[in-house]
Amino acid sequence: MDRPVEPGHFSACEARLDKHIAGRCSVDFPVAVVLPAGGSGERTGLLTPKQFCTFLNRPLISYTIQTFERVPWIQSIVVVVAKESLDLMMDIIHRFHHRNVLVVHGGSTRHRSIFNGVRALSEGEGGTARVKPKVVIIHDAVRPFVEEDFLLKITMAAKEQGAAGAIRPLVSTVIATTLEGYLDHSLERTMYRASEMPQGFIYDVIYQAYQRCSESDFEFGTECLHLALQYCGTNAKLIEGPPTLWKVTYKRDLAAAESIVKETLSQSACVVTGGSAQATELANALQRSMSALDMEVDVISDLMGDDAKSLSKEWNFIRVSVNSSCFSEVGKMLSALEEADRALLHPVVIIWVYLNVSEDGLSASEPMGGEPAAMMELATGAKLGNILVYGIQLHHSKEATLWGRSVEKVAQMSCALIRDRSPALTGQLLQA
Amino acid sequence: MDRPVEPGHFSACEARLDKHIAGRCSVDFPVAVVLPAGGSGERTGLLTPKQFCTFLNRPLISYTIQTFERVPWIQSIVVVVAKESLDLMMDIIHRFHHRNVLVVHGGSTRHRSIFNGVRALSEGEGGTARVKPKVVIIHDAVRPFVEEDFLLKITMAAKEQGAAGAIRPLVSTVIATTLEGYLDHSLERTMYRASEMPQGFIYDVIYQAYQRCSESDFEFGTECLHLALQYCGTNAKLIEGPPTLWKVTYKRDLAAAESIVKETLSQSACVVTGGSAQATELANALQRSMSALDMEVDVISDLMGDDAKSLSKEWNFIRVSVNSSCFSEVGKMLSALEEADRALLHPVVIIWVYLNVSEDGLSASEPMGGEPAAMMELATGAKLGNILVYGIQLHHSKEATLWGRSVEKVAQMSCALIRDRSPALTGQLLQA
Repeated sequence: MDRPVEPGHFSACEARLDKHIAGRCSVDFPVAVVLPAGGSGERTGLLTPKQFCTFLNRPLISYTIQTFERVPWIQSIVVVVAKESLDLMMDIIHRFHHRNVLVVHGGSTRHRSIFNGVRALSEGEGGTARVKPKVVIIHDAVRPFVEEDFLLKITMAAKEQGAAGAIRPLVSTVIATTLEGYLDHSLERTMYRASEMPQGFIYDVIYQAYQRCSESDFEFGTECLHLALQYCGTNAKLIEGPPTLWKVTYKRDLAAAESIVKETLSQSACVVTGGSAQATELANALQRSMSALDMEVDVISDLMGDDAKSLSKEWNFIRVSVNSSCFSEVGKMLSALEEADRALLHPVVIIWVYLNVSEDGLSASEPMGGEPAAMMELATGAKLGNILVYGIQLHHSKEATLWGRSVEKVAQMSCALIRDRSPALTGQLLQA
Repeated sequence: MDRPVEPGHFSACEARLDKHIAGRCSVDFPVAVVLPAGGSGERTGLLTPKQFCTFLNRPLISYTIQTFERVPWIQSIVVVVAKESLDLMMDIIHRFHHRNVLVVHGGSTRHRSIFNGVRALSEGEGGTARVKPKVVIIHDAVRPFVEEDFLLKITMAAKEQGAAGAIRPLVSTVIATTLEGYLDHSLERTMYRASEMPQGFIYDVIYQAYQRCSESDFEFGTECLHLALQYCGTNAKLIEGPPTLWKVTYKRDLAAAESIVKETLSQSACVVTGGSAQATELANALQRSMSALDMEVDVISDLMGDDAKSLSKEWNFIRVSVNSSCFSEVGKMLSALEEADRALLHPVVIIWVYLNVSEDGLSASEPMGGEPAAMMELATGAKLGNILVYGIQLHHSKEATLWGRSVEKVAQMSCALIRDRSPALTGQLLQA
């Protein structure tokens, strides 16, 4: 099965297209990534190691892998996991259709694990040699939001200098303590930086550093840049990274990561009208109201022709229908999304907005037929495929204030449903 | 108006009652808190300074003030704000009924602001002298989750040693950089700690340190513990703090803070049955299902007598009613919560579960009367008072599998409504 087009870029606010294009042009050498993912994640306070913790139906490590998969100039990804997580990792790769990912066993410490990953890039399985990369990027499996332009900076600096690493300003003052637990002295904050990930190395530099380093380095060392300096004389170039490099460490960080993904998925929606005048009028009104709620809305009449591309780039769909017509259209939309495997990586939202118009145009409501039951059934099936279907019913009114209030309510509920993505509420027909 | 009883403890999982009691006994001297809150919060990426950013209808700083208000041995709280935030801060104090809070103007740097706050504790307004505290705790307005037992440790250590401060292990390796931006050396991680808040000082120590320190300290210094050492010869005792001391710095941290508060508010619910046998049967079934979803459920027949205390300790209520009876009970519950000013600090959830039983006990549904419209109206009013009302309708079935599935669905939706606390969905009557 094919991967969906544009599987989602988590930092749309900081995306810089020109640099992306520059990246595609200037990296004319093989680059690989090693993701150590053997940690036990004690600090999250959860039983599952944090890289395997799930939000929006997908484990954290899959988000990180996806981040590297969408960089066209990265050839391969090595994930280093503890032996007991091997089956789980293979299952994740299979389930989310990750490609070009090699899984290797970790060692007893972080450095041993990274070295296993680095080694796997030049040693083939079953005697076949791989193409050794020129530059290898080392990154944490629990930092899913690194951006392509920053990876490019690290890669280019590593190629030029032999090694490069991300740094961030210190958030707290660093202090030295006496053996008895008293303040000895505090460091001058401006002189120091926090060393973060990603780091990049010329392959031979990191390989040789690991071959030359001591057992004590393997056991207690924490800093790859330090090994490159000590054993290869390579002074790493340090590059200030954005705050998005942050590491998911505690349970609260998983909530933060989920909120970032949800926000990214909820920036826009596509309203499909079916072409009727009343539906189009409502769609245009919704577009205005939702844009005031910071959601960009595209109005189209159907998903045919040029507009079919919305299926592959949008995460949220609103199908407006007048009276009972067009419920089957929601089913068709669902089938198209399922066929495109659109909800493989992220839950997709479909909201069916049902406009109730009586014959005389007044607000007396036409009683609902079997739609609520049909929608519940449709939604129950859709949820299994990671597509969340909700309904909103509103009554038409010729009285402008009432009508405006109803439209406003549909807009607010739609934005809330899209942002919350609550699986428990699918299939409900809400009232505006 | 009175403050609600027990305004919420944000670390229920780590609460240790014995230590709390110990705390109440052993602090027999006056303690005050200074909260510098003059920062501009550039790093959140938001226009509002982060201490004034709002989640669940309340600004972050109010959560922090609340944390100190519930510590019985802390006498007064000084909040130091920038001149332009003074009105906003007074409004927050008024709106959320904060007491014993003194608001003072900040200075041009963090140290000047803290000194202003410290000074205000001994200098009275209008010539009246205050009771100078023995120990002053300095804490960040943007670290809302500090716990009483940790404040106690800091306070007692400060009283004994003159100064005490929270530390945490370093999360990243700290490196020194050359002027040209290359790695100079990395620090031995085990030798250093991150200095965090809270810090505690004997009042005279911090006061004198500020009186003696230089303009350069006021301008560029970051570490109060360092001033106490340098100018008063006081070696601060360093105490390892929990991860909950973390500082809200970025936009993602606001999402994390919100998730922590939501989780704390969603640990339990109170189901009120009205006493009927069918309602009680459903309530007991819900109790089982919701406890499997990690929500503790209390079943009571009404909110009278001893059970009235649920009103003042519970954040979530489920009112089960059979057929159309008892909708008015939801209104009464709402009035009682409003009278107790229960939703002043946190949104309270009421879910009306409407069990539809036909006369012959089969699932044929009695048509709904005016309840949906009445509920929407009730919910719209309640929302203004920070109370979120939702409805769930289910049909009775004698068929065990069907019935079990309906109950399970009510449980799932109730847990989701309680955890999400979505204001946009109040007044909806959902179908199980």
